[in-house]
Amino acid sequence: MIKVAIVGGTGYTGVELLRILALHPEVEVIAVTSRADTGKKIAAIYPNLYGLYAGEFCSPELDHLIQADVVFFATPNGTAMQMAPALLAAGIKVIDLSADFRLKNPQQWEQWYGMTHVCPELISQAIYGLVEMNRSLIREAQLIACAGCYPTAVQLGLLPLIENHLLIHDQIIADVKSGVSGAGRKAELAILMSETGESFKAYSVNGHRHLPEIQQNLSLIANREIKLTFVPHLTPMIRGIHATLYVQTSVTIHELQTVFEQRYANETFVTVLPLESHPDTRNVRGSNQCQIALHQPQGGDITVILVVIDNLVKGAAGQAVQIMNLLYNIEETVGLKTLALYP
Amino acid sequence: MIKVAIVGGTGYTGVELLRILALHPEVEVIAVTSRADTGKKIAAIYPNLYGLYAGEFCSPELDHLIQADVVFFATPNGTAMQMAPALLAAGIKVIDLSADFRLKNPQQWEQWYGMTHVCPELISQAIYGLVEMNRSLIREAQLIACAGCYPTAVQLGLLPLIENHLLIHDQIIADVKSGVSGAGRKAELAILMSETGESFKAYSVNGHRHLPEIQQNLSLIANREIKLTFVPHLTPMIRGIHATLYVQTSVTIHELQTVFEQRYANETFVTVLPLESHPDTRNVRGSNQCQIALHQPQGGDITVILVVIDNLVKGAAGQAVQIMNLLYNIEETVGLKTLALYP
Amino acid sequence: MIKVAIVGGTGYTGVELLRILALHPEVEVIAVTSRADTGKKIAAIYPNLYGLYAGEFCSPELDHLIQADVVFFATPNGTAMQMAPALLAAGIKVIDLSADFRLKNPQQWEQWYGMTHVCPELISQAIYGLVEMNRSLIREAQLIACAGCYPTAVQLGLLPLIENHLLIHDQIIADVKSGVSGAGRKAELAILMSETGESFKAYSVNGHRHLPEIQQNLSLIANREIKLTFVPHLTPMIRGIHATLYVQTSVTIHELQTVFEQRYANETFVTVLPLESHPDTRNVRGSNQCQIALHQPQGGDITVILVVIDNLVKGAAGQAVQIMNLLYNIEETVGLKTLALYP
Amino acid sequence: MIKVAIVGGTGYTGVELLRILALHPEVEVIAVTSRADTGKKIAAIYPNLYGLYAGEFCSPELDHLIQADVVFFATPNGTAMQMAPALLAAGIKVIDLSADFRLKNPQQWEQWYGMTHVCPELISQAIYGLVEMNRSLIREAQLIACAGCYPTAVQLGLLPLIENHLLIHDQIIADVKSGVSGAGRKAELAILMSETGESFKAYSVNGHRHLPEIQQNLSLIANREIKLTFVPHLTPMIRGIHATLYVQTSVTIHELQTVFEQRYANETFVTVLPLESHPDTRNVRGSNQCQIALHQPQGGDITVILVVIDNLVKGAAGQAVQIMNLLYNIEETVGLKTLALYP
Repeated sequence: MIKVAIVGGTGYTGVELLRILALHPEVEVIAVTSRADTGKKIAAIYPNLYGLYAGEFCSPELDHLIQADVVFFATPNGTAMQMAPALLAAGIKVIDLSADFRLKNPQQWEQWYGMTHVCPELISQAIYGLVEMNRSLIREAQLIACAGCYPTAVQLGLLPLIENHLLIHDQIIADVKSGVSGAGRKAELAILMSETGESFKAYSVNGHRHLPEIQQNLSLIANREIKLTFVPHLTPMIRGIHATLYVQTSVTIHELQTVFEQRYANETFVTVLPLESHPDTRNVRGSNQCQIALHQPQGGDITVILVVIDNLVKGAAGQAVQIMNLLYNIEETVGLKTLALYP
Repeated sequence: MIKVAIVGGTGYTGVELLRILALHPEVEVIAVTSRADTGKKIAAIYPNLYGLYAGEFCSPELDHLIQADVVFFATPNGTAMQMAPALLAAGIKVIDLSADFRLKNPQQWEQWYGMTHVCPELISQAIYGLVEMNRSLIREAQLIACAGCYPTAVQLGLLPLIENHLLIHDQIIADVKSGVSGAGRKAELAILMSETGESFKAYSVNGHRHLPEIQQNLSLIANREIKLTFVPHLTPMIRGIHATLYVQTSVTIHELQTVFEQRYANETFVTVLPLESHPDTRNVRGSNQCQIALHQPQGGDITVILVVIDNLVKGAAGQAVQIMNLLYNIEETVGLKTLALYP
Repeated sequence: MIKVAIVGGTGYTGVELLRILALHPEVEVIAVTSRADTGKKIAAIYPNLYGLYAGEFCSPELDHLIQADVVFFATPNGTAMQMAPALLAAGIKVIDLSADFRLKNPQQWEQWYGMTHVCPELISQAIYGLVEMNRSLIREAQLIACAGCYPTAVQLGLLPLIENHLLIHDQIIADVKSGVSGAGRKAELAILMSETGESFKAYSVNGHRHLPEIQQNLSLIANREIKLTFVPHLTPMIRGIHATLYVQTSVTIHELQTVFEQRYANETFVTVLPLESHPDTRNVRGSNQCQIALHQPQGGDITVILVVIDNLVKGAAGQAVQIMNLLYNIEETVGLKTLALYP
Repeated sequence: MIKVAIVGGTGYTGVELLRILALHPEVEVIAVTSRADTGKKIAAIYPNLYGLYAGEFCSPELDHLIQADVVFFATPNGTAMQMAPALLAAGIKVIDLSADFRLKNPQQWEQWYGMTHVCPELISQAIYGLVEMNRSLIREAQLIACAGCYPTAVQLGLLPLIENHLLIHDQIIADVKSGVSGAGRKAELAILMSETGESFKAYSVNGHRHLPEIQQNLSLIANREIKLTFVPHLTPMIRGIHATLYVQTSVTIHELQTVFEQRYANETFVTVLPLESHPDTRNVRGSNQCQIALHQPQGGDITVILVVIDNLVKGAAGQAVQIMNLLYNIEETVGLKTLALYP
């Protein structure tokens, strides 16, 4: 059994890890920390887990984590970097669902995240955690920086194009939409039901932290700088990300469909839908799946790529468990077979 | 492997059966019928099942069902009674999720359902499918009339009181609220998002078909006629039933809590929450759980019982699979371990 | 022109007052206070008011209010009682949308609201602000304690019964459901969209502050103590209250319908729907209307009364403007003609 | 008083016309037709209009319309063209909210709308009904083809750019999102709450009927062919359109802001928000307003324009009443002052 500890168990990615790991046959959760809810029963905070976790949230101290084989950080940005050095030194694997180790350039990180990085020397050893991009590197890693929710959707939709040098114009537009759980479990006016229900808006148009993350990785693969206009929107639902990507490519829609299908032929968690499809985010709600559909409307100057994921599963906790499975040579789908809830 | 056929695969209870059975290790789904979608790929209609069902919907003919060990009817009322006689004669088990065999009195059935019953002689051999009420009878049955969604919630909330003769006044009030999936997958104006979103209303106050079903079963257990005022409401969400039950009882809240805890101590799918609890329907969304909480406000003349289930799982497809497990001596929880999605 | 000041302009009842008063032809809003948003443009906080209020929120000081003819308190409980004495002494009318002056017994108030009342001597001069109950008293009042949202719905549904002594059993059950805007504009986890969306629950079953308010007023009218079981629920929508009331009465449904129709024949804002009706909360969303429907299911032991209002309009800001109109001898409907938004 | 008839009174644009016209001081509604609901009370179908319309829906015959000064068509496509010739010949003004007269080229119309146009000779006299584009032409018109909902939002967001020749690349991308009321009041599976709630998707990526409408009008103004990639999405809310427009322009964001502010300085129903703004669709829910915000992220290669309207008001019924006011020399805002509902 893999001994797992979770730091930051009272956010939405934390409880999603608990939901998934509760039924994972190879895992024992030995500690779940929560600064705010220390001492409270897990099932009292999360009644959907009633009967599955008898224990309590503990304080986020090293002592509670040191017996673990692997520690998940489901914390706000800036926490994982404080504790990772000691855990890594103790030989523990660290899967960070926050953004602390995603950007390779510490100056860029500090600029976008507004704080000083306390262990920039560890950044280079962190492997970017998007399995479909970095499977073999992840297998050998000790520190994994899980991909963000938007970057997971956008990159899965662009990878086959970038890897195959099929873009004829570097100006990519990513119009992305997220459910409100993407904003986390925080007591903030802006994400009240009365504020976000029955309304739709764009936000952070002038710059969102997931922009440099996507640009860094796509540029790395393309071996040149990729330009991206990235506009996130808040949509009045709880779970789900829908990315609508606009690119210019040299190939026909049928060729492109083949490229995508071949690229993802062996990926259990990525499905390329038939031509003419329009995936709903509910197709993947609660599951670790990503669904992709391709279109070339009106003659084909612009190719439109539609991508859906569940931001809390493939965009966070599911991805993290997929990574853990890789680290321990378990089949990638173990614990991740849950189907999307419809309706 | 149990060979399963599903009649009526394109309604919400049908697809929910498909979702649950896809991961059931002892089941092989050999036929899924749909009058409307005959010949269409299952995954084309239900993209959440992509990759799990390669086949197509077939027409609802006996030939397609006769190889099955067990046939689930996820059909509108009036269909199961047409096909059940032939299936039963062929030795096949029938689990009917519709209402065709729920009422013991055929005249009463015809009055509430507005059609002639074509096989009233089978009604007496049908076992009412609420496992927590009828476990041992179900084990031996060939024809099961699964409990309705509202009746499941209301009866689980009242059983311990009735069985222990703790009501001092027969006038029970059941104020029940359901998500719109309870109305089914039908092209009707009244259940459009623009009609039901952001609005709340009561319906069928003068008489709902689940009223005689509940009264019949509770009266049977009480051995006298139970009076029930039953008011259903439509709430602007997709899944979930919340029953608020008002009763008058002779015992204190602490005694009652003990009675309920003991009654359900061995029931995996029923949880009696600690005193002071207020279950959300999301605690059980997507799972086969029922959660119950008890209150005696302001001195205790009236006891308030709160019950939540997912109408499509414990109120329909999950219950049906739990019954199938019983019929085949499989552990009741097999295929039904999925946890509620939160948030 | 009536000079109006609003204390507490950044809550949902505050902005609703601003929305209604913006188009009121006899009103000039001279000050809107907000502790949190002092100095910010009103339209920056409430972009739906763009172009209608050029000014800024000011701090809640007496100096800003003293030029007003009437001051609305749209504040949390405990604020109005601090400022009301000085305003009343200055001859200003005070319309309090909070609960500070609703309960006649200061000890009871302190017990339910958990603080010391600073001007209990003013309580007796406060008129309870439910126009349909207290029209003539309100006309002459200087201090009005507006009815709470739930009490408005429940009392309008019971008034004709109580006034005409038609109850044969004092045990009334009020199962009430509210949209989340009823919880206010507060940064609290429990009312995030991810927490309240797609879920339904009861709350405060053991005692809600609106219970003593309703009991006090109904008992006053009945001239004996009325017993009420009051169970509030949170429903996943933004606006609207639906009360389902269960009573026992000596009269037939047709007699009752007549009693209700006659009682409200001259009330513009209360509509008794035809028999067999089931009002949706959306029928009154954004309007000052109350709609009522009566039922006597299954023989009539229990009469079921359905009542819908918009909690922020007839349950708060609309009611307050209706009261202001009365105070100034303006037709009651002025500023309140807006129709419910459908869909 | 202007005598108004409405053809197609039981769709969402029909009831929205009724809601707006109920409070319009210069209008008398003399007939409301509905094929499906002929003979039924208007208030029975639309309980939000209780007490405002005593009459019944009548059948859609010429006799019922011929006394009107102006006839609104709130019908499915293909109906207005059947009746318009006779009405126009009788000197009646026709305001068509459907698409029958929007496209100047009858062949193009027939191709996109899949039917034969029965009065192509009238197309040239129809004035395109977007007041901010065609005010003076509308004033003199007898037949108006109201702009579609998406085209209203997209064109208001692009007009200042096109009129001032500020585009440096003709490849415009319009990523647009609509609430489900845009799909109309039709008994269709795809727009059930269980199908559209809590989910987000694109649709008609390969071609939507509003594409040729937008291209025709923008090209006319630009005096050259404008290329547009137009991707509509369905968002899980009832009302509202959010257009996110991506263009390339030669001017800075500050210059552009000035251009937009000047262009709309005298337009009551179009507000250019301050730089850095992100309009919510709820800012305009239930109102005839359009709000626009401009952004040039990351150096400015791509300019992002955000536009919000209520699809049923500025995108349909409100626009139509604004047009009627123009036709009768009434101030444009009469009947249209209702503020957006927040929250």
